[in-house]
Amino acid sequence: MNSEDRKGFFASKEQLDMADYLTLDYYLECVGDIETALAHFCSEQSTAQWKRVDHDEDFRPTYAAKVISLTVEGELEALSYPVHHFESGPIHACRVTIAHPHCNFGTKLPNLLSAVCGEGVFFTPGVPVVKLLDISFPDAYLKDFDGPKFGIDGIRDLLQAYNRPIFFGVVKPNIGLTPVQFADIAYQSWLGGLDIAKDDEMLADVDWSTLIERSHVLGEARARAERKTGEPKIYLANITDEVDRLLEQHDIAVSNGANALLINAFPVGLSAVRMLARHTKVPLIGHFPFIAAFSRMEKYGVHSRVMTKLQRLAGLDSIIMPGFGSRMMTPEKEVKENIAECLQDFGHLKRSLPVPGGSDSALTLETVYRKVGSVDFGFVPGRGVFGHPMGPSAGATSIRQAWDAIEQGIALERYAVGRPELQAMVDGGRK
Amino acid sequence: MNSEDRKGFFASKEQLDMADYLTLDYYLECVGDIETALAHFCSEQSTAQWKRVDHDEDFRPTYAAKVISLTVEGELEALSYPVHHFESGPIHACRVTIAHPHCNFGTKLPNLLSAVCGEGVFFTPGVPVVKLLDISFPDAYLKDFDGPKFGIDGIRDLLQAYNRPIFFGVVKPNIGLTPVQFADIAYQSWLGGLDIAKDDEMLADVDWSTLIERSHVLGEARARAERKTGEPKIYLANITDEVDRLLEQHDIAVSNGANALLINAFPVGLSAVRMLARHTKVPLIGHFPFIAAFSRMEKYGVHSRVMTKLQRLAGLDSIIMPGFGSRMMTPEKEVKENIAECLQDFGHLKRSLPVPGGSDSALTLETVYRKVGSVDFGFVPGRGVFGHPMGPSAGATSIRQAWDAIEQGIALERYAVGRPELQAMVDGGRK
Repeated sequence: MNSEDRKGFFASKEQLDMADYLTLDYYLECVGDIETALAHFCSEQSTAQWKRVDHDEDFRPTYAAKVISLTVEGELEALSYPVHHFESGPIHACRVTIAHPHCNFGTKLPNLLSAVCGEGVFFTPGVPVVKLLDISFPDAYLKDFDGPKFGIDGIRDLLQAYNRPIFFGVVKPNIGLTPVQFADIAYQSWLGGLDIAKDDEMLADVDWSTLIERSHVLGEARARAERKTGEPKIYLANITDEVDRLLEQHDIAVSNGANALLINAFPVGLSAVRMLARHTKVPLIGHFPFIAAFSRMEKYGVHSRVMTKLQRLAGLDSIIMPGFGSRMMTPEKEVKENIAECLQDFGHLKRSLPVPGGSDSALTLETVYRKVGSVDFGFVPGRGVFGHPMGPSAGATSIRQAWDAIEQGIALERYAVGRPELQAMVDGGRK
Repeated sequence: MNSEDRKGFFASKEQLDMADYLTLDYYLECVGDIETALAHFCSEQSTAQWKRVDHDEDFRPTYAAKVISLTVEGELEALSYPVHHFESGPIHACRVTIAHPHCNFGTKLPNLLSAVCGEGVFFTPGVPVVKLLDISFPDAYLKDFDGPKFGIDGIRDLLQAYNRPIFFGVVKPNIGLTPVQFADIAYQSWLGGLDIAKDDEMLADVDWSTLIERSHVLGEARARAERKTGEPKIYLANITDEVDRLLEQHDIAVSNGANALLINAFPVGLSAVRMLARHTKVPLIGHFPFIAAFSRMEKYGVHSRVMTKLQRLAGLDSIIMPGFGSRMMTPEKEVKENIAECLQDFGHLKRSLPVPGGSDSALTLETVYRKVGSVDFGFVPGRGVFGHPMGPSAGATSIRQAWDAIEQGIALERYAVGRPELQAMVDGGRK
């Protein structure tokens, strides 16, 4: 590409009608001439050949992705990760902002993904290392999306739970219980104080615990727990399945008494989530399998923030994500960015309830709460409730006691005195 | 986890009925005690809490993933990639084979992904670096999958093209042409000798080139090209879209004359591909956007071979993949592994046509052919046909001439003499 050719892939924001463009932030490691690499980077993700042979035309003004901002962070001695490539020359770490015309693909999530993290982006000559850091959408694009149908406020209304976190629990053992055994444990946890007893993201519709049977007995157990406690409760059924079964699974689970549904967003695909969000009668809660496979490397892949944003766009009312726990291998800054993506303004879209999870219990609640910085989050222990030495009801109670301690400003260890459920957790934590 | 607890996550293959298990190969970097890390790795991807409190039970014999083979490759000074983690101790690179009971999720692709590259796999204490290298399926699992409906033989029959590669071309400019302009270029390329004129993976159903209009004019152009050449031709229409529109898009495109369909497999989701494969009346050809985001790192993520295998399992008749071209940043060994995944025995499933792509032209055909080692591949130039200085018909002709030269065992440069289409490519390549 010569100098004249390259110019078609650069613009200033002021020259463009930004309502026509998505704004993409990338981290790139460029080999050789930076301007050439960036022109190729834009070309490959949009109009790679911008005119026919022997025609005097140029598709770039309308259809080309264009660099609108560049910061060269410095020269590197080597790529941050070894990648098979053929260019030679100096290597520069760059932050680049690109305006990508959304008329190239429209308001369709699979086509959006193909454009912003597809072949062009990851197979540009001279750019072996790429991370998509963020996407910003103009209102003109967002208006085609409904987003969450319930959002945080809808979930709170359903539970009549305000001014506090929402207390989830992943029923454990996650794999192997019969539906009746599973319902018994969930029932105990509701009685102990959980708002939401949930299926594990690994437990869906299987021979030994069919969704139809599990949702039936869990629906009954939920009704009993609501009568006993006088409080609304949620059974969160995992309907993750092949896309052509999702709507049917929704209908089965909901008619049997599941009043929120879990879906593994990336494995089913974001547009399947969007389809389900249009159809659903209950809140949809997303789980995060697979996302770490492309988001964990600091300088390669796709930032988890992008996936959180796209899950909200697709219509998830709540998003379970890797949280602050040491097991979750996610920098605190990144967890906070993902929480912010659920809560901050995003066109006309409702807020999603962020659920930063990972090995939580009564002992971690205050830390999570302080780090989130508000009550607008879900707290999702598993073994912290269902592995409690006194059983699941006591496990759930220990979580609620921990919250009471926080609300009243009393140290956990002091509040545990005379409260055996919390005391057992405090004692266990000391070991 | 104590020593007694760990035992439940190890087994010898001979102890297990392997018809009940998928076999998973992983590369892992374990921090601290290897056996403990591996027990956690199995536990997290299956039954993390294997009994209820105060119950004498053990779900592991049936439901636990189990290490059946381990090779410690050596001790590392540091993780291959910096990953935020909290364990300390020696770091070992390990190859591990795990038997994972498929009754945990069944023959559903989203649930399979959630198990083998989901939360458990990527969030195991002591295992910050993971790459899923391969999956093997017992026939008991494969029998629920139909796989490709046409396969290589079906595509060859459709084209009446045997004993040679299948010649694709990506119509370029990929973005910006009106349907009529697009059809004109495709028509020329068919006349010049292409079997298949295809939409770019970025071009789907957009305002300025709707699928309904494009497939209509391309269907007509294809019929004209077939009459003119006396040869069957394929228009490969990209129907990548939101999942709830895929079947409708199939019906529109096929009734208008598209006789194969392109789908961006990972962005729509593998189970959407499977749904479409059940429904389709024409061959389905997959493209690879997004896969590089999790497969490029040598020691992290998911190997591209796994994705090729899953695409064949989902029913793609042909799989476009990063090829040998220098632009594609993929080691030759990996390209060959992906080609092998299309061609080798895989239960009762038909073979998929591998299409290793990337900046190809008449000048690269022989290299690709030699590296593939058979005629069972698709060759997919873009600018190598549509950027040809004499136009798309000449571009396509240059490809066929290059194949004739190979068949006749004549050097390309010699064969080009008196054949201006090939000569132009040879001359261009010399520059």
